[in-house]
Amino acid sequence: MEQKIPYKIYLNEDEIPTRWYNVRSDMKNKPAPLLNPGTGKALTLEELSPIFCEELCRQELDNDTPYFDIPKEILDFYKMYRPSPLVRAYFLEKALGTPAKIYYKFEGNNTSGSHKLNSAIAQAYYAKKQGLKGVTTETGAGQWGTALSMACSYFGLDCRVFMVKCSYEQKPFRREVMRTYGANVTPSPSTTTEVGRKLLAEFPDTSGSLGCAISEAVEAAVTHEGYRYVLGSVLNQVLLHQTVIGLETQAALRKYDIKPDIIIGCAGGGSNLGGLVSPFVGEMLRGEADYRIIAVEPASCPSFTRGKFAYDFCDTGMICPLAKMYTLGSQFIPSANHAGGLRFHGMSTILSQLYADGYMEARAVEQTSVFEAAELFARVEGTLPAPESSHAIRVAIDEALKCKETGEEKTIVFGLTGTGYFDLVAYEKFNNGTMTDVIPTDEQIAASLAKLPQVPQAE
Amino acid sequence: MEQKIPYKIYLNEDEIPTRWYNVRSDMKNKPAPLLNPGTGKALTLEELSPIFCEELCRQELDNDTPYFDIPKEILDFYKMYRPSPLVRAYFLEKALGTPAKIYYKFEGNNTSGSHKLNSAIAQAYYAKKQGLKGVTTETGAGQWGTALSMACSYFGLDCRVFMVKCSYEQKPFRREVMRTYGANVTPSPSTTTEVGRKLLAEFPDTSGSLGCAISEAVEAAVTHEGYRYVLGSVLNQVLLHQTVIGLETQAALRKYDIKPDIIIGCAGGGSNLGGLVSPFVGEMLRGEADYRIIAVEPASCPSFTRGKFAYDFCDTGMICPLAKMYTLGSQFIPSANHAGGLRFHGMSTILSQLYADGYMEARAVEQTSVFEAAELFARVEGTLPAPESSHAIRVAIDEALKCKETGEEKTIVFGLTGTGYFDLVAYEKFNNGTMTDVIPTDEQIAASLAKLPQVPQAE
Repeated sequence: MEQKIPYKIYLNEDEIPTRWYNVRSDMKNKPAPLLNPGTGKALTLEELSPIFCEELCRQELDNDTPYFDIPKEILDFYKMYRPSPLVRAYFLEKALGTPAKIYYKFEGNNTSGSHKLNSAIAQAYYAKKQGLKGVTTETGAGQWGTALSMACSYFGLDCRVFMVKCSYEQKPFRREVMRTYGANVTPSPSTTTEVGRKLLAEFPDTSGSLGCAISEAVEAAVTHEGYRYVLGSVLNQVLLHQTVIGLETQAALRKYDIKPDIIIGCAGGGSNLGGLVSPFVGEMLRGEADYRIIAVEPASCPSFTRGKFAYDFCDTGMICPLAKMYTLGSQFIPSANHAGGLRFHGMSTILSQLYADGYMEARAVEQTSVFEAAELFARVEGTLPAPESSHAIRVAIDEALKCKETGEEKTIVFGLTGTGYFDLVAYEKFNNGTMTDVIPTDEQIAASLAKLPQVPQAE
Repeated sequence: MEQKIPYKIYLNEDEIPTRWYNVRSDMKNKPAPLLNPGTGKALTLEELSPIFCEELCRQELDNDTPYFDIPKEILDFYKMYRPSPLVRAYFLEKALGTPAKIYYKFEGNNTSGSHKLNSAIAQAYYAKKQGLKGVTTETGAGQWGTALSMACSYFGLDCRVFMVKCSYEQKPFRREVMRTYGANVTPSPSTTTEVGRKLLAEFPDTSGSLGCAISEAVEAAVTHEGYRYVLGSVLNQVLLHQTVIGLETQAALRKYDIKPDIIIGCAGGGSNLGGLVSPFVGEMLRGEADYRIIAVEPASCPSFTRGKFAYDFCDTGMICPLAKMYTLGSQFIPSANHAGGLRFHGMSTILSQLYADGYMEARAVEQTSVFEAAELFARVEGTLPAPESSHAIRVAIDEALKCKETGEEKTIVFGLTGTGYFDLVAYEKFNNGTMTDVIPTDEQIAASLAKLPQVPQAE
């Protein structure tokens, strides 16, 4: 007889993973290295360490070590919000009338409202361990900035967040959460950096951009003694920290002897998707199991499905290293009508390589259909999802409806990365029926890809 | 050896209480009945049932039945967000350096963001069972309206919320959450009711009041076929539904053989405090145990600590029944600078009687000290608390600091009713240092109490 599976599977606290899993160690084709845009050579520890904390640089460059022990201080902090529940979506299954079994790993039950806290606490810890005074970063929507503020507050580190000016003004609530955690939040562009002052002199009325905020945060880090820059997605180190999601999911599934058929995650820079699927992809890489992995991206920023696998700048400012990834071109800007996050032009190099090697599928979805899924989910499962997470919900529902047609009892697992409490301007548009879809034309993408950098030939 | 207590104690799903506990059944001095303001006689089922659902009227009037079975449909819904965790505040204890052991029952992990959902789902269920089309209610800050929207969406009931106009305009996010759950949200005063039209004709620029919103919601219920009015606090039925909080807390404590010394809850109308403490007070009433119970109220609206135990109107509009309660007078309005909820002039009749009989203490706290406690709690425990809940945090911290002085290892349990994600305007004031305390003068309270109604003598 089938064991009755509860609505929420909670691991015990002593079952929280104590090691992160490095999926690169099992990849035959390693992700391509970050390149110095000046020389075309792979970036070294020496080049990276003025910008990032040393231990994090080591994690960034390590393609071989299979597991990293999670320091005790981070495990202690985990107790504040982990283990996170793996929820059986009985209500959603019933509403859909599907024979599929749907599960979601919910990472939103903390004040940052998302999975971002998993990497923030790790990065803050290594900064503290290195004896730094503080860290700098940028934030757009504010989830990463909030997570980092919480982590820095815990370790007594100074946290300087450059927040894109239009968000700073239009999302005062996110700003105030960060300030409540003691962060120093500066609207970007600001007069506190050279790059900010230069931009303001030229465009006094600019409302800022993520690219500019990155440049300011990097400048603030390298020009202040005892500071380093931290980033909440894309990087290998971030995916490593986020594997706690996938490892917990795996442990919860094993507890009830559940084998998933399909694993679904939303994909912007790849931190959540990579964290969720890494341990499962590891099984595939080692030939132990087979899964369908689906990355879901917005149709307005479709790097996997319409981008090119090539070296590109990670930032619109073209000052960061070159990464080989699926990209729409660093000058690609999603339409202003795009509501959620997931607006990065590129993608994690690890996930890009896995996708190129056939370990993952990708699907692009339009935002009105994403919000339809979000509304249904909120009503039947009781949690108002973040727009980002709702991309995964959309495809989970689509797959469950296919099962309804075919009668297949597939097991679907997806990542519910966060809650939508700070995204109600977008929900309001949806509720008013004024939300639209703007999808880039082939010409727009071709024009942006035409500006991909020439990679200098390393000798 | 002491059993190691986890950070979060979760009951299993089959340990969720299946009965609500009616504390009135164990009270020697029963709470005084609601009176008809015209006749001075106790309200009957016949008088109440045109306004409230019939089964809820029965619960309201029943002072004798000790337990009410929770219907299966409500137990099913509980699985969406219950059991809620009882959290050991190890981080807070460490930050305070106290030998006290602090626990909190966290009711905020659902999209309504508070405990209000516990009664909303019960009231929606009985409305559905009675074959009604829908329910009407009022909301100020929006927690109750959100909870009711979620509950009505689940049972397919129409939900009509009259939202105080200034909140409707200044808190668009709350409004949009309700709309996402399909509720019809109307700014009050509105032109949809007689009372609203009358008020608008006289004061076209009014920003509304809770009193007026109540009047509109009641009118809309009694003038529309198939509708009833529902209320989120104060009433006996609401306290009954909220006992699921206290019963779960009791079960979690027993699991680890923990006996609390002090139990603390914030008090506005009394729904959360009553729900949390009822089962513990029941033990006291039956002579089985002894606890210190502390009700915490805002110094700007101090009904327990500075009010009078007397019959008064439940609403500023003076159309609702008379209730015998600790009251500041129905015309008392807390200072506009008051940030959180808990602004009701009166108090649950059950809690009023228990307080009069010496089963509870009460303490009034100023809002700046409440936000200091909230900030500390957010930083060390990782959850941004609602201003209301932070009243309980303040006193829990004060009691823990007393233990630090005396060296006593007391066990403190408090109710963390909700999260503060929609209260960031208040946090912003606190962060900017512009939050102040305004406490009513003795003269103000005396003037308000002088207007208490003359209760007609029932023959």
